Order: sequence, then structure tokens, then C-alpha cells
Amino acid sequence: MGELLYEGKAKKIYSTDDEQVVLVEYKDAATAFNGEKKAEIIGKGRLNNEISSLLFERLRESGIESHFIKKVSPTAQLVKRAEIIPLEVVVRNISAGSMAKRLGMEEGRPLRKPIVEFYLKDDSLGDPLITEDHILELEAAAPGEIRILKEKALEVNAFLTSFFRSFGIILVDFKLEFGKDAFGRILLADEISPDTCRLWDMKTNEKLDKDVFRRNLGSITEAYEKILVRLGG
Amino acid sequence: MGELLYEGKAKKIYSTDDEQVVLVEYKDAATAFNGEKKAEIIGKGRLNNEISSLLFERLRESGIESHFIKKVSPTAQLVKRAEIIPLEVVVRNISAGSMAKRLGMEEGRPLRKPIVEFYLKDDSLGDPLITEDHILELEAAAPGEIRILKEKALEVNAFLTSFFRSFGIILVDFKLEFGKDAFGRILLADEISPDTCRLWDMKTNEKLDKDVFRRNLGSITEAYEKILVRLGG
Repeated sequence: MGELLYEGKAKKIYSTDDEQVVLVEYKDAATAFNGEKKAEIIGKGRLNNEISSLLFERLRESGIESHFIKKVSPTAQLVKRAEIIPLEVVVRNISAGSMAKRLGMEEGRPLRKPIVEFYLKDDSLGDPLITEDHILELEAAAPGEIRILKEKALEVNAFLTSFFRSFGIILVDFKLEFGKDAFGRILLADEISPDTCRLWDMKTNEKLDKDVFRRNLGSITEAYEKILVRLGG
Repeated sequence: MGELLYEGKAKKIYSTDDEQVVLVEYKDAATAFNGEKKAEIIGKGRLNNEISSLLFERLRESGIESHFIKKVSPTAQLVKRAEIIPLEVVVRNISAGSMAKRLGMEEGRPLRKPIVEFYLKDDSLGDPLITEDHILELEAAAPGEIRILKEKALEVNAFLTSFFRSFGIILVDFKLEFGKDAFGRILLADEISPDTCRLWDMKTNEKLDKDVFRRNLGSITEAYEKILVRLGG
């Protein structure tokens, strides 16, 4: 393993022999509410690495590239080095979480069409919702880049919604991050896992995602394991 | 005076003999922070009615129509009846207030270009910032209407910025509301006053708007009177 380049709330990033490749190690950590609630959860790092690797592979097979190269251990994957764009791109199919609260909607209502939201990645500001005008003011992305982010986010949503549905799971909403590679190309990055998606059982509406941790609904690893098993991982 | 149709935090609306016309009576009330801070301020109703009437008249002369018909007493004006669109349309030229806080910017920084924001008019939700996708989901306005709201808000901004500047006043930001008339046409409505604008003295940066009340900076009527006198009212 190379040099530790960065440690986040849920992952560590290490350098490799290849300057354009880094190793992502998933930690056994759960955090919520901007880090206010946290816990060590044995086995969670493996589950998220397995699920994220599986989803990035399926996306690649469907023609949607990401930074993902390959899984190299139960808890680690190699990815292309990318400079992360400081935006969380959230796609929503069903009202839940902060949007339901903001708009005064009950949770669980299907939206007329998928909604894309941008949040500024800034813990000290509490990752606020921002508009496209704000993004331009902050120079977080250029107008053409915002368009690409939205398009890619909706493509990922179209694929993942039908992929999860085929396993009896509703993709309620999810958060993506994007980076720029050495050539300035925008690349899907970060992870896609029950930490970053809301996933509900289609029959029972059982939550199989980080809301289990946020809302103390039971064992988070049992929930994530159910996702991994259903997806055939 | 006709029947009281509606009483808001700062204004009362009465019917008139003409079904398409209502009378707006400005109250001697100041409120801030979603109604948490409030006070009766003798003379404020007159000042806002005078200033708002003057600004709607100048806008009309420059070709920008509104619901305003005419001032009929020191504290009242006649306006066209309009169904209010439940959005606050905010235009910003300089960082201040909630946007500066949201984005972690210092107050007083000129923006690259004017920013238009939409807030949902809903006291129970705290008038949250919302995106265009949210507006469509809530059916608060149609896509073509959102475009018109933005265009009109920027037109008003272009006129008012140069109008205030000619009197040594910086238009930092302001809030507009729009309504639809009997024919469904979108019409500038509500008021334009130091209650709904941030106005700073160009030389001293002295605040001449509701922040005097929000932040306990002195006499709100003295500040508003300065605006009225400078504008020649």
C-alpha cells in the first residue's frame, strides 16, 4: 500500500505505483448528520466496497464509465485519480429525507419526474443546497459542466432504477460525486452504496440503507448484506 | 373602504367597488426572522407606501408594468387584483444575508453577475430556498413562467440598480413577488420598499433598510425617511 493521501469519514485514499491510480480503502465507519452521529461498524467497509464495485461494474457494462478500475481486496478498490468537483449531485425519484422536509411533502410520494439537486461539499457550511447560479458564482463548475453533471446523473439514475427494480428494490434517491481526470474530463467518482442511496424493499418498504443507522431502525450490516445478496454479490 | 380580504404581516388588503382592483393598506408593523421578531413602528406604513408607490411609478415610466395603479392616501394604494404566485423571487447584486451565510461568503462582495433565487412562500416551512425542479414538482409555476419570472426580475434589477445608484444608494439585493391577473398574465406585485430591499449608502455603506431592524442598528423610520427624501419623494 502506498502513502495515505486523504482520510475521509468513510474512506482512506492511498497512492499506488501508477500516478494516475489511487487505492480506496473502505472504513468500518458510519457517520450521519454532518458527522454528529458516528459509530464503528464491523463489516460495513467490506459491504460498501463489494456493493460499490458491483454497481460500478454494472454501470460500465451498460456504457457508463466511472473512476472505478477494479476491486483488489474485500475492502479496497483501485480507481482512476480524479480531482473531485466540490458538489454533491443528488437524484431523487421519490420524496424523502431533506427534500421532503424542505418542501413539506410526506415521505414516499413518487415525483413527477426525477429531480437533480446540487449541494455544496463543505462540512463547515453543512453541505447546503445550492442553485446553478450559486455554482457559477463559486466557480465550482462551469455552465457546460453543470449540464454534463445533470445529464450523467440522470443516465446513472435511469440505469440504476431499473437495475435495482429487477431485484425488488426501489431506488428512492442517491448522491453522486464527480471528478475531473488528468485531461479535464468529467468522471463519475466516489462510491455508490447504501451509504449514498436510499433503497427500499419494493414489497415491504423496509429501508435497506443508511437511514437504518440515521434513524436507529436496526442492524445496518444486516440491511446492507441483504442488498449485496439480492444483487447477486 | 371595502371588505378586509386578507391581513398579512405588513399589509391589509381590502376589496373595492371594482372587482379587479383592491386597496393595499400598509401597516405600522415591522417583522423579521419569519415573524419571530416584531414591533409596531409608527410612521413605517406611510414610508413604505410612499416609497413603493414612487418605485412602481418609476418602473412604469421605464416600461415595466406592475399591479400598481395609484397611491390614494399616505398609507394606501390601489392595485390590480392578482393571484399571488407562491414564490419569493430574490435578485442579488452583492453578497449579503442568507446567501452569504449559505455559501460562506463575506458580506459586501460584488457578485460576478446578478443572481436570481426562488424561495417558497410558506411560513410554516420558513420560506426555504428551492430549485427550479422543486418549483415544477410543486406546480408553483410552469417552466415558461419560471423563465418569465427570471427575465422580469432581472429587468427590474437593471432599472432599480441604476435608479438607486443615481441617488448614491447601492441596491444590494431585493425580493419580488408576482401574481397572475384575470387573464393569467404574470404581473409584478406586492411591494418594493426598504422592507424588501437591501439598500446601502454608496459612500458610508450605512444600511438604509430592514437590516436596521433585524440587527438593531438604530431607527428604522429615520433610515427609511432618508431613502424617501433621497429619491425625491
